[in-house]
Amino acid sequence: MRELFQQELHEVQDRLVAIAGLVVTSITDAVEAFNKSDVTLAESVIARDSIIDEAVNELDEHAIAILARQSPVARDLRIVVSALRISSSLERMGDMSEHLAQLARYRFPDKVVPKSIRPTFQEMGSLDVQLATMLVELLKTQDTALAEKIRDEDDKVDKLHLSVFETVLSEGWVQGAETTVDATLASRYLERFADHAVSIAKKMMYLSSGEWNPSES
Amino acid sequence: MRELFQQELHEVQDRLVAIAGLVVTSITDAVEAFNKSDVTLAESVIARDSIIDEAVNELDEHAIAILARQSPVARDLRIVVSALRISSSLERMGDMSEHLAQLARYRFPDKVVPKSIRPTFQEMGSLDVQLATMLVELLKTQDTALAEKIRDEDDKVDKLHLSVFETVLSEGWVQGAETTVDATLASRYLERFADHAVSIAKKMMYLSSGEWNPSES
Repeated sequence: MRELFQQELHEVQDRLVAIAGLVVTSITDAVEAFNKSDVTLAESVIARDSIIDEAVNELDEHAIAILARQSPVARDLRIVVSALRISSSLERMGDMSEHLAQLARYRFPDKVVPKSIRPTFQEMGSLDVQLATMLVELLKTQDTALAEKIRDEDDKVDKLHLSVFETVLSEGWVQGAETTVDATLASRYLERFADHAVSIAKKMMYLSSGEWNPSES
Repeated sequence: MRELFQQELHEVQDRLVAIAGLVVTSITDAVEAFNKSDVTLAESVIARDSIIDEAVNELDEHAIAILARQSPVARDLRIVVSALRISSSLERMGDMSEHLAQLARYRFPDKVVPKSIRPTFQEMGSLDVQLATMLVELLKTQDTALAEKIRDEDDKVDKLHLSVFETVLSEGWVQGAETTVDATLASRYLERFADHAVSIAKKMMYLSSGEWNPSES
């Protein structure tokens, strides 16, 4: 019985890692679709989103079934509660990838943002891919040192996000409203993606510390 | 013992209702601050957000303590799991109110959006206030008929959100990039606020049906 229970808990973690892996693929493809205006890749991201949503629902049902049948306590309970929380952040990260891919598809065959600002978006995109990759590692290893790295990367994304606004609001910005709207939304999606990664890292801290609201240090 | 448990479950629901009440105040004030360019009101919304966050954390801790000590099953378990899920949506609704208030504060003493598009934002804001008010009622009464009304109101918000983009991308839009960015973000915040209300309504359906992922009908 106890062994079965441990196996079920492992399955929770394996499922989280698998979903995070899908999110890595989605953000990688979404960023490439956005940068290169690749409509086929954009569509594959959009199609993948329902797979992520389904995997999240199955994980949630599995976690709730464990709560109902096994009545876990202490660290075991924290694993299950964390999983429920982390899954919803992963689901949102999938949504952000999808939104980015949708922008690429709408503007195809044009690129979404003009050349002058493209390097900033490439850098944000590449940071988001790194963040997602670190998350997989964090979920696998529960190495909380990774949580700090994730926060550092998020700081970089935040700075780039602000720099997008500086560019868009500068005198040198001669783009029309459509491009301004697209750049605003794309930057917001990339920034929110990184926020969710930080939020997951915090939830992993809870898992190891037992403190629900670890300080923001 | 059983009586104490029921009391604790009631407390979960009372706390949710209380947090939803804070969200009603926040969105009401944020919408008024945005419409009337009222910086004092905007600042009160921004200050209130940490109160909402704290109330959410306390509720979460309370819910997790119940899981650990009482090992609830069936409907009792669903109440606790739903509460954990609903609280994070309420927290995000508070964030959206705060973001809207921040826009009002940044642009003070100017209004955030130009006169031509202000009625659309007023309508979206007023729908968001109604949605939040319905949520309080839904959390209090668990009357699932309200869940359908919430979906209908959200459809209206989505249509207005699209109409903002139509206006911004039309030839008649002669605003600079700053106003375009602000209108894009404000509309997104108001739309996301409504999405979270729908998401909470779905979680309440789970509470009554026991199905984690009720169909989207």
